[in-house]
Amino acid sequence: MSLPSHVRLVEVGPRDGLQNEAQPISVADKVRLVDALTAAGVSYIEVGSFVSPKWVPQMAGSAEVFAQIQRKPGVTYAALAPNLRGFEDAVAAGVKEVAVFAAASEAFSQRNINCSISESLARFVPIMEAAKQHGVSVRGYVSCVLGCPYEGNVAPEQVALVARELYAMGCYEVSLGDTIGTGTAGATRKLIEVVAADVPREKLAGHYHDTYGQAMANIYASLLEGVSVFDSSIAGLGGCPYAKGASGNVATEDVIYLLNGLGIDTGIDLEALIVAGQQISTVLGRASGSRVAKARSAQ
Amino acid sequence: MSLPSHVRLVEVGPRDGLQNEAQPISVADKVRLVDALTAAGVSYIEVGSFVSPKWVPQMAGSAEVFAQIQRKPGVTYAALAPNLRGFEDAVAAGVKEVAVFAAASEAFSQRNINCSISESLARFVPIMEAAKQHGVSVRGYVSCVLGCPYEGNVAPEQVALVARELYAMGCYEVSLGDTIGTGTAGATRKLIEVVAADVPREKLAGHYHDTYGQAMANIYASLLEGVSVFDSSIAGLGGCPYAKGASGNVATEDVIYLLNGLGIDTGIDLEALIVAGQQISTVLGRASGSRVAKARSAQ
Repeated sequence: MSLPSHVRLVEVGPRDGLQNEAQPISVADKVRLVDALTAAGVSYIEVGSFVSPKWVPQMAGSAEVFAQIQRKPGVTYAALAPNLRGFEDAVAAGVKEVAVFAAASEAFSQRNINCSISESLARFVPIMEAAKQHGVSVRGYVSCVLGCPYEGNVAPEQVALVARELYAMGCYEVSLGDTIGTGTAGATRKLIEVVAADVPREKLAGHYHDTYGQAMANIYASLLEGVSVFDSSIAGLGGCPYAKGASGNVATEDVIYLLNGLGIDTGIDLEALIVAGQQISTVLGRASGSRVAKARSAQ
Repeated sequence: MSLPSHVRLVEVGPRDGLQNEAQPISVADKVRLVDALTAAGVSYIEVGSFVSPKWVPQMAGSAEVFAQIQRKPGVTYAALAPNLRGFEDAVAAGVKEVAVFAAASEAFSQRNINCSISESLARFVPIMEAAKQHGVSVRGYVSCVLGCPYEGNVAPEQVALVARELYAMGCYEVSLGDTIGTGTAGATRKLIEVVAADVPREKLAGHYHDTYGQAMANIYASLLEGVSVFDSSIAGLGGCPYAKGASGNVATEDVIYLLNGLGIDTGIDLEALIVAGQQISTVLGRASGSRVAKARSAQ
């Protein structure tokens, strides 16, 4: 059983994290966070989202954030582009990589983005075409891969279907999101096995939420299945939007601690990451969601 | 890779947990906790410790607790007996199973129990003899198996040496404790492999702390190594005595959630367990350390 020698961490804190924090923060604080993540050696940062600030006030100013961050060569600064309008705004802001998302659950798709799964996939077609024209890379998210807040269980085959569509339409990587954190290690392995029949394993990423304390075991299980890309959120930013006060995104610091222990290279400096997480936690006026950060600050 | 079909959970909350909570609670509250755990189907409960209440006020009244709990046939109600005096008090209180503990780190042994590892093992000899006479079973703990707060790394071979001694002197099971929670999944597997050369795998238990967020991954790693006994603490009682405010014992609720997901039988009713954890958290006036409990109460 050989683990990957290198793992790429996709830092989603500035987007997925901050978007789900109650309190919007300033452009300056967002820029400081992204720059601190860059300085810590993070090679992929989801910086913001191009959506109407009327709907998602936490993501207001994403263009300004992109304009002000210090870009380091070799680092990907990505944005979420939920529709063609958002994609065009992202391109205008100099974004070279965007992410699109679909759900594996029909009920979640309806309630979260107000259309069916196939309608949401159809909406990505013009984005994919525009992306090709502009030389922009597109990453795909699938949510509810290990459970849905409305439907309960979600079949791995249903996830595979959506992942295959995203991959076929040109997403270079598909991130499998356990949106409500109900997945456990065995189900995670089974999911990867099934999806890998349709999308190459090296094109899959794991995006696990720690709502039920399972994220770290699911990451280890995924490593054993050969997955080598994981999404995580500095200081566990974001919490769980479906259970207020509960944990959501797994904390990047804790994932790096695991990977360091396993001897897996990430290029990320854990100490610098902890400092970045403490800074943003102070801005938000709350304790870090990272247990590594808590243990360090309690010593 | 086959996982165990059944896992035995050793509930250490009433002892290891409450002992490390700042605030001592009443005998009545302890009895209520133990009875609630019994009702939830827990088959092994470490109820208390027979030590001087001058040194450990949280464990005062352990004899009264043993006298008042409702014993269910087939359930083990154990006590910590750090010395012969404690053992005799335990027997007088009707205790049929005791636990003894040694450290895998010389510095920890000196600072925590004020003697060398070999001196501590020598002190267990009269306890083991007395236990045989009284028909009392003895479980052994080894602490600092994946790191020491004073020495840092601890060699698996050093752990194996102490575990072998405990097993050879008559401990029917040896629990391997990651006291400071610094272990990660690969080191955990290596540890079990090394120790299993001296103590049969089915006689080993895993006792993991979540201080750095690694407990659940370490439990999954141990299951993959064939370990089928785990120590855990209801509501994550106890925190980390070496980093105040940080997580300590892994929460029983979260472990049961993992095992249920893996289809591994424990005989424990998760819903009843969550209720028991909420009760004791209310008594202590703090939030539960279980993420499963938090997610449930936040919904």
